[in-house]
Amino acid sequence: MSIIVQKFGGTSVGSVERILNAANRIIQEKENGNDVVIVVSAMGKSTDQLVDLAAQITAKPSKREMDMLLTTGEQITISLLTMALTEKGYDAVSFTGWQAGIETEAAHGNARITNINTDRIKNELTKGKIIVVAGFQGISSDQQITTLGRGGSDTTAVALAAALKADKCDIYTDVTGVFTTDPRFVKEARKLAAISYDEMLELANLGAGVLHPRAVEFAKNYNVPLEVRSSMVNERGTIIEEATNMEQNLVVRGIAFEDQVTRVSVLGLPNELTTLSTIFSTLAKNGLNVDIIIQNTTSDDRTSISFSVKTSDLEDTITILEQHKSVLQYEKVESETGLAKVSIVGSGMVSNPGVAAEMFDVLANEGIAIKMVSTSEIKVSTVIDQAHMVNAVDILHNAFELSKVAVIV
Amino acid sequence: MSIIVQKFGGTSVGSVERILNAANRIIQEKENGNDVVIVVSAMGKSTDQLVDLAAQITAKPSKREMDMLLTTGEQITISLLTMALTEKGYDAVSFTGWQAGIETEAAHGNARITNINTDRIKNELTKGKIIVVAGFQGISSDQQITTLGRGGSDTTAVALAAALKADKCDIYTDVTGVFTTDPRFVKEARKLAAISYDEMLELANLGAGVLHPRAVEFAKNYNVPLEVRSSMVNERGTIIEEATNMEQNLVVRGIAFEDQVTRVSVLGLPNELTTLSTIFSTLAKNGLNVDIIIQNTTSDDRTSISFSVKTSDLEDTITILEQHKSVLQYEKVESETGLAKVSIVGSGMVSNPGVAAEMFDVLANEGIAIKMVSTSEIKVSTVIDQAHMVNAVDILHNAFELSKVAVIV
Repeated sequence: MSIIVQKFGGTSVGSVERILNAANRIIQEKENGNDVVIVVSAMGKSTDQLVDLAAQITAKPSKREMDMLLTTGEQITISLLTMALTEKGYDAVSFTGWQAGIETEAAHGNARITNINTDRIKNELTKGKIIVVAGFQGISSDQQITTLGRGGSDTTAVALAAALKADKCDIYTDVTGVFTTDPRFVKEARKLAAISYDEMLELANLGAGVLHPRAVEFAKNYNVPLEVRSSMVNERGTIIEEATNMEQNLVVRGIAFEDQVTRVSVLGLPNELTTLSTIFSTLAKNGLNVDIIIQNTTSDDRTSISFSVKTSDLEDTITILEQHKSVLQYEKVESETGLAKVSIVGSGMVSNPGVAAEMFDVLANEGIAIKMVSTSEIKVSTVIDQAHMVNAVDILHNAFELSKVAVIV
Repeated sequence: MSIIVQKFGGTSVGSVERILNAANRIIQEKENGNDVVIVVSAMGKSTDQLVDLAAQITAKPSKREMDMLLTTGEQITISLLTMALTEKGYDAVSFTGWQAGIETEAAHGNARITNINTDRIKNELTKGKIIVVAGFQGISSDQQITTLGRGGSDTTAVALAAALKADKCDIYTDVTGVFTTDPRFVKEARKLAAISYDEMLELANLGAGVLHPRAVEFAKNYNVPLEVRSSMVNERGTIIEEATNMEQNLVVRGIAFEDQVTRVSVLGLPNELTTLSTIFSTLAKNGLNVDIIIQNTTSDDRTSISFSVKTSDLEDTITILEQHKSVLQYEKVESETGLAKVSIVGSGMVSNPGVAAEMFDVLANEGIAIKMVSTSEIKVSTVIDQAHMVNAVDILHNAFELSKVAVIV
């Protein structure tokens, strides 16, 4: 008998009605003759409400007590969903993270799963029960309730699928799958039938929150096939798996983009071996995430570095750089806001060296200036003016013929 | 160092403001140099909201899943209260029932505590921390989350006090103590400085919900001194302890009463040894609680039984009796609604045989007919017309001089 893990996100269990709807999806899979293990998030905005309660008490809640507080959210969902399954005539049992054997490191707020003791789940599966597990939470070796951080329920689902050697892990969410680009901006955006783990990682910021990168990495490491699909609409979603069985060997599979990007340039740095590591470890220690990095050596003893950050991080970035000026020994810092990042992603690029050039060409023909470029094996990212972002995505979507394959339903 | 257990009920932690207020009470006790262990209920009406959610899904939720659902309520309170204590500069740590070592029988909805493993609490106490424990919940030997049923948080507090050999268990609630009778009906009602466990048990229905009888029994068995006091008003409450140190050897310490009482009479029953057990075990099996029972043998082979039930149970009672008529072999059933029960309670009665007679006399002088009577060592209960209830309580309160002792503050 196959084991299927199904994960339902917050919006998919956001009301009693949706919980009943999720129950129907689960029953459908059970009726297909599978053993079914369900992972759920907290209902809709309930986590936000709990965070708000804590904020009324303290500006700096302890992470341990936040974990204690927030884990109640998923616990409510598992009990209600289990009741719904029982009400519909199916034998089901709910488990909190610790009951499901989700063991984590002894950290709060962002613990990693160290082991899953599947005995209890397997025991109940042999009795024919549907298992409903609270996502996002686990237990440390010192018996503390821990949480897995952002995307935690996705990670729980994938980790359980790996530990149970499940045939598949379905991620039910509020979109019908992974699209070639954001359909809110590009009419021709179409749903992909399949995508590789690496492509999914590179497209992570498309349709924010569809699937957490950490869960995708986990799935890749343990080779767990994922399907992102809608809990509302009954249609096939997007399969995420190793780069086999792909619908076509598309050169470009999707276009990702984000606005509110700022370029920071640190000019006149000493040209030493440790310059890059010093500057970026200083920023990282202060919690600042840098995206694209470009180094430009202008003379033998001086170098310049440009990098992109979220515009909301600009002020902190400048402050940190100024605080460390005596160590970093740069001449000056410049910045440019109002930028956007547009990336094309596809594993076909590896064997197709002209793709980056084609992208630059398309943008140039449209009169769009490229401010920064970064390339990887399966991705080319450009930083351009934010004003051109949607247009750039649109013309690239056409140029790489992303709308030409029929929508998979 | 003394250990003090403090329990805060749902209204005492019903809002962020009240949680901060409870934190101040706790800190006061900590500053007195005591080790402090706190037990809390779910916030205000949050349990009702969870019950309502479940009711939207199923009319018959499994008890296991209801326990899973409802225990989130106390878990939210412990985290918020612990944050409040930390915010005020005190080291505190929260524990769910299972983390606090509250072991129960393997039953859901109404489990009894079988053992408390206090290791973890004691370990944190030695570090000077305030311990905040989720009331009402525990863990069974098969690792299920269980609840203790009604009054569960009171029971948790008393059981913890017993297991930790605490000096005292304070029950913070929304009343200032235990009164001689209900002050909403009798102006002269006064707060008692002290009352015995047994008297408290007999007065249980006074000021409904002040303290659950189960917790009182537990406290009596382990000789844990309790104090019922207000979380809002800073004044002494009512001490509940063995019948020593009582303010006075009052013959009557309080007057309990309830309305919506119905008398049911089953006439013409066979006068056999098993008649009583048959009729009342039949009713009990069907979940019907009978209060006062009176048997009246009218001839050698026939007998009649009267008993009181809540008026809301009358219809079910009649139905059950009719369903079992062939077994019970009675002639007919009669009932009288619109009655009330008025009881006087006091351990001084044991050595004072005239108390019941004095009660009957006082009622007779007021022209109040007594329909049923039941007596115990420390209680005399009468059933009268509901229309006379408040008047009867009033004149008994005067007759037994309950208002004469100064109010204790």
